[in-house]
Amino acid sequence: MTASTTESPRPAPGGTAGLRERFAHVRALTDRLTDTLSAEDQIPQSMTDASPTKWHRAHVSWFFEEFVLRRDPSYAVYDDTFRYLFNSYYEAVGDRHPRPSRGLVTRPGVTDVTHYRRHVDAAIDSALEAGALDEEGLRLLELGCHHEQQHQELILMDLKHLFSTMPFTPGPVYIDRLPDPPTSAPPPPTWREVPGGIVQVGAPGDGFAYDNEGPVHQVLIDDVEVASRLVTNADWLEFVVDGGYRRPELWLSDGWAHRVDVGWEAPEYWQQDDAGRWSTFTLSGRRPIVADEPVLHVSFYEADAYARWAGARLPTEFEWEAAARAVADDRGELLDPKRCHPRRVGAAMIGDVWEWTASAYLPYPRFVPANGAVGEYNGKFMCDQHVLRGASAVTPPGHERVTYRNFFPARARWAFSGLRLAR
Amino acid sequence: MTASTTESPRPAPGGTAGLRERFAHVRALTDRLTDTLSAEDQIPQSMTDASPTKWHRAHVSWFFEEFVLRRDPSYAVYDDTFRYLFNSYYEAVGDRHPRPSRGLVTRPGVTDVTHYRRHVDAAIDSALEAGALDEEGLRLLELGCHHEQQHQELILMDLKHLFSTMPFTPGPVYIDRLPDPPTSAPPPPTWREVPGGIVQVGAPGDGFAYDNEGPVHQVLIDDVEVASRLVTNADWLEFVVDGGYRRPELWLSDGWAHRVDVGWEAPEYWQQDDAGRWSTFTLSGRRPIVADEPVLHVSFYEADAYARWAGARLPTEFEWEAAARAVADDRGELLDPKRCHPRRVGAAMIGDVWEWTASAYLPYPRFVPANGAVGEYNGKFMCDQHVLRGASAVTPPGHERVTYRNFFPARARWAFSGLRLAR
Amino acid sequence: MTASTTESPRPAPGGTAGLRERFAHVRALTDRLTDTLSAEDQIPQSMTDASPTKWHRAHVSWFFEEFVLRRDPSYAVYDDTFRYLFNSYYEAVGDRHPRPSRGLVTRPGVTDVTHYRRHVDAAIDSALEAGALDEEGLRLLELGCHHEQQHQELILMDLKHLFSTMPFTPGPVYIDRLPDPPTSAPPPPTWREVPGGIVQVGAPGDGFAYDNEGPVHQVLIDDVEVASRLVTNADWLEFVVDGGYRRPELWLSDGWAHRVDVGWEAPEYWQQDDAGRWSTFTLSGRRPIVADEPVLHVSFYEADAYARWAGARLPTEFEWEAAARAVADDRGELLDPKRCHPRRVGAAMIGDVWEWTASAYLPYPRFVPANGAVGEYNGKFMCDQHVLRGASAVTPPGHERVTYRNFFPARARWAFSGLRLAR
Amino acid sequence: MTASTTESPRPAPGGTAGLRERFAHVRALTDRLTDTLSAEDQIPQSMTDASPTKWHRAHVSWFFEEFVLRRDPSYAVYDDTFRYLFNSYYEAVGDRHPRPSRGLVTRPGVTDVTHYRRHVDAAIDSALEAGALDEEGLRLLELGCHHEQQHQELILMDLKHLFSTMPFTPGPVYIDRLPDPPTSAPPPPTWREVPGGIVQVGAPGDGFAYDNEGPVHQVLIDDVEVASRLVTNADWLEFVVDGGYRRPELWLSDGWAHRVDVGWEAPEYWQQDDAGRWSTFTLSGRRPIVADEPVLHVSFYEADAYARWAGARLPTEFEWEAAARAVADDRGELLDPKRCHPRRVGAAMIGDVWEWTASAYLPYPRFVPANGAVGEYNGKFMCDQHVLRGASAVTPPGHERVTYRNFFPARARWAFSGLRLAR
Repeated sequence: MTASTTESPRPAPGGTAGLRERFAHVRALTDRLTDTLSAEDQIPQSMTDASPTKWHRAHVSWFFEEFVLRRDPSYAVYDDTFRYLFNSYYEAVGDRHPRPSRGLVTRPGVTDVTHYRRHVDAAIDSALEAGALDEEGLRLLELGCHHEQQHQELILMDLKHLFSTMPFTPGPVYIDRLPDPPTSAPPPPTWREVPGGIVQVGAPGDGFAYDNEGPVHQVLIDDVEVASRLVTNADWLEFVVDGGYRRPELWLSDGWAHRVDVGWEAPEYWQQDDAGRWSTFTLSGRRPIVADEPVLHVSFYEADAYARWAGARLPTEFEWEAAARAVADDRGELLDPKRCHPRRVGAAMIGDVWEWTASAYLPYPRFVPANGAVGEYNGKFMCDQHVLRGASAVTPPGHERVTYRNFFPARARWAFSGLRLAR
Repeated sequence: MTASTTESPRPAPGGTAGLRERFAHVRALTDRLTDTLSAEDQIPQSMTDASPTKWHRAHVSWFFEEFVLRRDPSYAVYDDTFRYLFNSYYEAVGDRHPRPSRGLVTRPGVTDVTHYRRHVDAAIDSALEAGALDEEGLRLLELGCHHEQQHQELILMDLKHLFSTMPFTPGPVYIDRLPDPPTSAPPPPTWREVPGGIVQVGAPGDGFAYDNEGPVHQVLIDDVEVASRLVTNADWLEFVVDGGYRRPELWLSDGWAHRVDVGWEAPEYWQQDDAGRWSTFTLSGRRPIVADEPVLHVSFYEADAYARWAGARLPTEFEWEAAARAVADDRGELLDPKRCHPRRVGAAMIGDVWEWTASAYLPYPRFVPANGAVGEYNGKFMCDQHVLRGASAVTPPGHERVTYRNFFPARARWAFSGLRLAR
Repeated sequence: MTASTTESPRPAPGGTAGLRERFAHVRALTDRLTDTLSAEDQIPQSMTDASPTKWHRAHVSWFFEEFVLRRDPSYAVYDDTFRYLFNSYYEAVGDRHPRPSRGLVTRPGVTDVTHYRRHVDAAIDSALEAGALDEEGLRLLELGCHHEQQHQELILMDLKHLFSTMPFTPGPVYIDRLPDPPTSAPPPPTWREVPGGIVQVGAPGDGFAYDNEGPVHQVLIDDVEVASRLVTNADWLEFVVDGGYRRPELWLSDGWAHRVDVGWEAPEYWQQDDAGRWSTFTLSGRRPIVADEPVLHVSFYEADAYARWAGARLPTEFEWEAAARAVADDRGELLDPKRCHPRRVGAAMIGDVWEWTASAYLPYPRFVPANGAVGEYNGKFMCDQHVLRGASAVTPPGHERVTYRNFFPARARWAFSGLRLAR
Repeated sequence: MTASTTESPRPAPGGTAGLRERFAHVRALTDRLTDTLSAEDQIPQSMTDASPTKWHRAHVSWFFEEFVLRRDPSYAVYDDTFRYLFNSYYEAVGDRHPRPSRGLVTRPGVTDVTHYRRHVDAAIDSALEAGALDEEGLRLLELGCHHEQQHQELILMDLKHLFSTMPFTPGPVYIDRLPDPPTSAPPPPTWREVPGGIVQVGAPGDGFAYDNEGPVHQVLIDDVEVASRLVTNADWLEFVVDGGYRRPELWLSDGWAHRVDVGWEAPEYWQQDDAGRWSTFTLSGRRPIVADEPVLHVSFYEADAYARWAGARLPTEFEWEAAARAVADDRGELLDPKRCHPRRVGAAMIGDVWEWTASAYLPYPRFVPANGAVGEYNGKFMCDQHVLRGASAVTPPGHERVTYRNFFPARARWAFSGLRLAR
């Protein structure tokens, strides 16, 4: 699972007014993303890694209440039980509802959660209007906005997984069916040269970043070539046809054992019909795979095996960042609530799909956790996770950064994850 | 889990008119039992043995559609996907949604299910009005009514389990808090003598009965004494205090292993506060245990251990039936939707709580499964289950019979199950 | 798993001299059965249900030490750790080594266990020679002899399972390859009529019997026909060919779920080669199945499904006993250490294979456990097990009785279990 | 589990004569380490991560047969089944016996394995004498010697785990009880400064090294201070007493979840008696922990938590290597078959215990797998494992190197693993 990491001590940009607008904007997007869902849609937890929509909507509100509003000792907690139910993993805050039981909570209901959201909206707005938040409070408010954006992506990932469990075609849809694009061969990849040497990595502190993106530091890298585009569905099909899922020599040992255990034969959500045609599940239902779209929903194990099969490798996160800085202003597809799916592969490195790297998720040198509960566990997920870079077609615009470090376990497939080759 | 068993070839009583009224009555009670539940309450599946309320409401309707309405070849199926989603375990009908995934189905929603119920209501009513059902159709309709009554009890059992998973006190309630009754010592049990000899067992065929209640046959029993009342909470507390949950010599081997494994120290739903006071969870919330109410939510393993501790044993289902015939007109508490909980122990043997017997659930001699899907698997649960007799405070009136054979695995505790001693 | 049950208070037959001879004979047979096994062969535990040969050899000796020799307060225990390591499940004796860890005990070694056996032999012999055992001691000694005979069969069952895990053909063998018998069609089964009425069941107390065989009591049975011979391999092949393992309607619900889960397609140890020929594993290695030998190593689930497929059913244990009393002097194959495998089906009901019955393993009426540790848990396995009657080709002669009640869980297949039909 | 990694294309040092002597020496040490074990001791597999001694003895011989002797097409394989049974994980060689079933193989027996070892010894010796091995063959022979040394350590680790499962004190011992050393306070740690900058990492190719130690390359590190000695038992006790195992804020998220799950309260093998005194299990039996010995048998999770508690961190493997090069000629305790346990902490960085680093086990830049089966999977374990550096008191002398990269999963505790702080 991904995990919200927390802020580093940088000043909040844009001042109070900018932040007030940003807060309103973020909160409204969550409402926008979930207001077509029924109460029923918002309850189930389709696997332990996922959470109910209702839970996400409440949890992000709890985050503001716990870390911003409760800084004011006179603030009256909305409901004590919410602290228990909607704390995700902050040990310092207290006991929590067990993660695997999130789908059993029927009360508060979705309308109650909407009331809770409105309560928190009003309280934050009042505090901002009254100038009642100190600098730390403002920083935590900004962190809360990024935190909620992160959960917007999780809401869509988790909902996609839930809807995919229904065995019908076309099955439940979140948005209207998209027109099938013309299928065309993807452009052949070319290689971008990234010169080796000492490169600067990490967030320099002149804007918001999670603390795991810092401190900025220097890394020595070799000369490297990074592919000019993502691996596509057409590429992946070649791998499938060439026995990529049957050849243990291509796989990491753990990956092969896992593949055999769970029976992977293609990316998550792919299905082959009796005529041999492949389809995939999207938030607008099942549809044929499109040759020149980036492959989606592959695990690190699969990405690594594919790269080996292709005679290449995954870039390290440092190589990736060095390459991406050259095209840092380009954007692929980011979250469009009417689409929620990448388009034809292009030249951007940020957007479309999260890209697995060869790097384990580890602290940068001199990484120091922030104070208090919000920062108590900054690094607590830095073990046996793998870094993904870029952003995806369900990442809200404004949440993407060239230094952003997303991370998932090697076997995770429900994130919008793909890959780019290096050599 | 319990399982709907099916009809034997007996004429439907009361004629078409009586059946039409009965159908309407049963359907209305399901609506009455569930109309205060939110959509959220009707979705989760708190354990594999349990099902969502929404599923129950749809499944019982599917049963009428599949086995009654579809006898008419011109009947148009309401929704093909419902056949897949709401078939419980009828292999002959076709594939089914996997039981453990019932809590992931968000569509159809609860309102859609209400529409489905109304559709089935109208179609059955039209068929009855038009005299379109043959004798077999009428029998299956009657069976469907009993089937739905059985699920009314399951709805309440499953809901109680779901609500009990919330860690708060008083926690979610299904009905308003009941007034605490005066606690008084239960009456001392006395023993009713049942003379041995050849006794008649099973349903004679002059009214509705499930096929597992027949054929009527003769069994040779010994003289036996059966306790005049159920084991109470006060009795059970003595067992707890005397180390009943710590003494392996009282337990069956499998029972002890299971007890150690899951950590049972008291019946399901019992909790002890810091002051040592015991409470239990009810459909009207958590409340202190009441001394002279029957103990509830114990497994066969616990019931068997208690009986051994008490120097007695459980009656066989044949002994139980012989004893119950003497008081067959008495009724303890049956389903009262405003109460859903037994009262002070009395003299009746039918009602209050289901009573574990010493009998394994096996076919009666010359038991023959009925024809067709509805009877295809009449005996398919007759293995490693244990017979309970009587009825409980959540059994709908009219569903109880002196020959009724309920059954659960030895470890099940979420049914309204208690016990009565014999010696 | 099977479990040693214990004696009822009957006088030991044959007096001290007969018992001394019997003890010597039983102990010698265990040595005879195990003296060709290497130390390596005696260590592994191939599944939790099975135990290492070394453990069996020590456990049966511990039984004599614990329950016979230690009646003399001056007896010095051979090794305190043996009490812990070789107690099977007697809670009253004290803590035990966890059953699943029996295969990790390397010390004492097999030679140490031989010394232990000789020590116990000498101590028992001295006690008998000195007349130091009282009546209860003599009864327990006789019980110990039967207990060791029971474990002789377990040693062979467990060893067969262990050796079968080796993937080679012919694989390790326990005894020399047997000559392949001429394959001929089995005789067609006929039906023996057993008249209904009140029949006497159980051991009358005029010879040794386990306490679960008593008390003798009366049971009312119907007229029944019992097949004149066991179901053969040829019969079973018809069931396989007819899709017996693919048709859920033939199976109990739990049985079908288990079959799907573990992938059964034939009896335990059966394998089909590329040419479609079936073989089975025996203690003399893998060899073709023989048409007119009884089918072996089927579970209760399979036996029950076969009977349904054949339009018949399994007999109850009461029907079986009534039928067997008519041919109670006949014997099929019992343990021949050079063979360990049944022969062509014949007319006997005792010997060849254990026969699954339709009866759950429950206490007989008025069953009362014996006093002390040896009897503490007489009935503790009487839950969710199924009775087998008869005896098998690895049951030592003298251990078989018409009233003998063997029992295993419905899914167990490693016993020498088959079936006979009734209707 | 650790895994044998394979050679890089470097010339074999010392020529054929040196290699012949080295081969004889390595093979003799394996015999020396195992010749006091009984057949029984060599059979069990105490957990999936571990292997039976018999298996190790055969597997290392198979490695020589498969990769050296079979280069000669005229070589007759000793036993085809051995290829199946004693291949560890080489997919290119063919199917393998399932790892969790290694403890079920009773044939070949230990004496048969000794014969196999002698056969391989003679065949290798003949080939060397005849000069029949080409350069690649000699390189593979040298690799096989290192491979067998690695398994010498595994034999001792696995045996320690097996013997520790016996619940008795003192329990089985591998070597005679060591005299208890005088307990004295460990020396206070001091800090060695390692200047930052570009450092060279990896094996330069002038002697044998596994391929995962190369290619040699440059890494940019910061200034760092590395502790002058290992963390001791006395240090660890302070951590325990200070609630180190009760404070989630000190732990990685996965580590805390695992700790709760399995109930860790102290290092593997530690036990506290009723008087509060701690002991640990050693290959010479259970004995009190010694204050100034290095702590042993801690997981990465625990090492990481300890470092956080101590206000420090683990060094990266690059920092470790830079620090170790300064004292690269010093040796702590390496394998002494009569001791198998570290001594009082000293100044050496190689020996005593393997040291967890902060580094994930990843390929070095430009790492290229070798050709053929032996190199087919060079990197296949480079995922979710953590690097340990140094060597331990059960590492055979000559097998340790300053560039050696050992690796285990974060939860592994049965290796001789400890830690050293950095800051």
